Amino acid sequence: MRVDQQWFIVDKIATRIPHFTAPDLSEPIKETILAGLARPWSMAFLSEEEALITEKEGTLVKINLQLKSKVVIKGFPADTAKARDRGDNTGIFDVLVDPQFDKNKFIYVAYAAKKGKEKATKVIRAVLENDALRDIQTIFLATPYTEERHHYGGGLLFGSDGKLYITIGERLFNEKDEPALPLAQNAEDKRGKIYRINSDGTIPADNPDFGAKAIPGLYALGIRAAQGLTKHPITNAIWFSEHGTMQGDEINILKPGANYGWPIKTTGKYRFAEYAPAALEGNTYTEPVWYWLQTVAPTGLTFYTGDEFPSWKNNLLVAGLAQGSLWRLVIRGESVSRVEELFTNDRVRLRKVVVSPQGKLYLLTDETDGKIIRVKNGTR
Amino acid sequence: MRVDQQWFIVDKIATRIPHFTAPDLSEPIKETILAGLARPWSMAFLSEEEALITEKEGTLVKINLQLKSKVVIKGFPADTAKARDRGDNTGIFDVLVDPQFDKNKFIYVAYAAKKGKEKATKVIRAVLENDALRDIQTIFLATPYTEERHHYGGGLLFGSDGKLYITIGERLFNEKDEPALPLAQNAEDKRGKIYRINSDGTIPADNPDFGAKAIPGLYALGIRAAQGLTKHPITNAIWFSEHGTMQGDEINILKPGANYGWPIKTTGKYRFAEYAPAALEGNTYTEPVWYWLQTVAPTGLTFYTGDEFPSWKNNLLVAGLAQGSLWRLVIRGESVSRVEELFTNDRVRLRKVVVSPQGKLYLLTDETDGKIIRVKNGTR
Repeated sequence: MRVDQQWFIVDKIATRIPHFTAPDLSEPIKETILAGLARPWSMAFLSEEEALITEKEGTLVKINLQLKSKVVIKGFPADTAKARDRGDNTGIFDVLVDPQFDKNKFIYVAYAAKKGKEKATKVIRAVLENDALRDIQTIFLATPYTEERHHYGGGLLFGSDGKLYITIGERLFNEKDEPALPLAQNAEDKRGKIYRINSDGTIPADNPDFGAKAIPGLYALGIRAAQGLTKHPITNAIWFSEHGTMQGDEINILKPGANYGWPIKTTGKYRFAEYAPAALEGNTYTEPVWYWLQTVAPTGLTFYTGDEFPSWKNNLLVAGLAQGSLWRLVIRGESVSRVEELFTNDRVRLRKVVVSPQGKLYLLTDETDGKIIRVKNGTR
Repeated sequence: MRVDQQWFIVDKIATRIPHFTAPDLSEPIKETILAGLARPWSMAFLSEEEALITEKEGTLVKINLQLKSKVVIKGFPADTAKARDRGDNTGIFDVLVDPQFDKNKFIYVAYAAKKGKEKATKVIRAVLENDALRDIQTIFLATPYTEERHHYGGGLLFGSDGKLYITIGERLFNEKDEPALPLAQNAEDKRGKIYRINSDGTIPADNPDFGAKAIPGLYALGIRAAQGLTKHPITNAIWFSEHGTMQGDEINILKPGANYGWPIKTTGKYRFAEYAPAALEGNTYTEPVWYWLQTVAPTGLTFYTGDEFPSWKNNLLVAGLAQGSLWRLVIRGESVSRVEELFTNDRVRLRKVVVSPQGKLYLLTDETDGKIIRVKNGTR
């Protein structure tokens, strides 16, 4: 078990340096709860013990954290494009349980749906009963279908307004393939955007106005490859992560009608160095709240609402794929005052960080033999 | 005052987002104690209130933190090469007070000494009395004198063995100027090394053996641009920072006879991309304990031994020039388990972080109008 190995090393070092003590008062340690998941992407709690897990290279499963058991949910759509390898951004993405699940049994799943060799991000609502899906309804489909491997997005979140927010990636890997009006800047193209819809797929009347021809449900644009969305526990503001190219990994706050600038403006470098997009008249771009100077590949994120790490309360936790560490961002209003990189000597690609209903902290590892890891406070 | 401005901004944001609270239990806030220092480099406490400060673009001064007063120490050597600007690595570097200062009044200062247009790192010992130096004695001189602007080193530390440790930079800015046997790898060249000497300038008998022709006092080699040295409060191990080129900024633990690899091996990129040094037979290189993936320019560092931030006890604090933030490294034995970047929304080039005899935390800013900043815990 990973955690045992870690402590074995620590003990060895502690022996080498006499009288070494570890006085940091919050001491996060990892404990593997369950392995054997096919690149898990997201986790939605049904109770403190039971959760749904989506797999990038697999399907939708239900796990029990106490029994350490796993069952496959039957009836997941057959048009799922499973990811073939680590760099393939297709697969099954976010999963949400309806706030009224006890009454309506609805769950929501985003995934890469295929049609022949081509794929598009689809969001479905379905009834979950007896470990099977029924009454599956497509509530959003980010056409066109294309053969791209990258940036399908697939983040889902219920806002405090009860609306469903969806991140859709731009799907291009290299800026040289951008049209004159870049995809993420084109309000008539579904890619590279954030949407806000009702949970039945209809469009709220109070969405921002991007013009008559804009895609229904459009809420913000200028997005390259956002995945994770989360809600501040006090302000209810929605914060989201975004992958840059070379550097340019960002944390943003979602504002109605905002343009986050991609690919006109970025905090990173273009993959295609000669790319020089034309300025777009009259646009104003919303700056990120935070950007890293190194490549992090930030993905599933959450505000910490547990009690086990008192000094982390309401901090933003971000899972990093590229360096395999967990990031803790201390925020003050709308700025980031401190940033901590955790588990720097025990790196593993992390897809998601999530807090259970009772405040326990879990990580999902982006591995073929993917794991659910509980983060415990070793000083308790 | 900087700290007021910061709180003004915080209040403004707090007003914008209703009910925002700041629950992090350790809340470092800055308070400027004294300004008007000419790029301060180091600080040595004479008491809880009085300290010597070296200035890169100035001289040696004594300050009183309570009275907020400053006096110039008379009699500092006239051969001082003052730095002309931010990128100029000459000037006055580290200052130490003898562990027996009460009896012998000795202080130690490293600085760039000039001879015409050429400079070399010199370490002096002098008696400090009545705010003046006398009996100045050169105890180390890192010849040759050259016209270079870069990497004079100048870090000083008394080890737990009572010996004086000195960092000397390699002084080259670009690897294309390296000789076939690179300077830092040549035991007969004084540059790019760490030395261990007695406080009177004589050489200890128990230094590592680098061969008959090696520079007397040589303790470790393969150093590019190390500046700060500090001693672990429990293990007494010496940890030091090193500047990389593009990335490659490192934290190392000092071991007798170790070769830290520069320029044969580095965690960064060469400034001269085509540089391809020949392998040196039979060498083994000591890996850094930590290296950053972004440019930090880590310089004066210290282990935190105060009580004001309980969770920081024995953490390594590192001042960063390039991004202007303070870094906190949580260590486990000889590895770094967590890394925190502090003051990310209040950046200023930091040269030195230091803890007072009674455990108060201070920063020196690398500015023409340089400041001493006290870091207080805002939650107290």
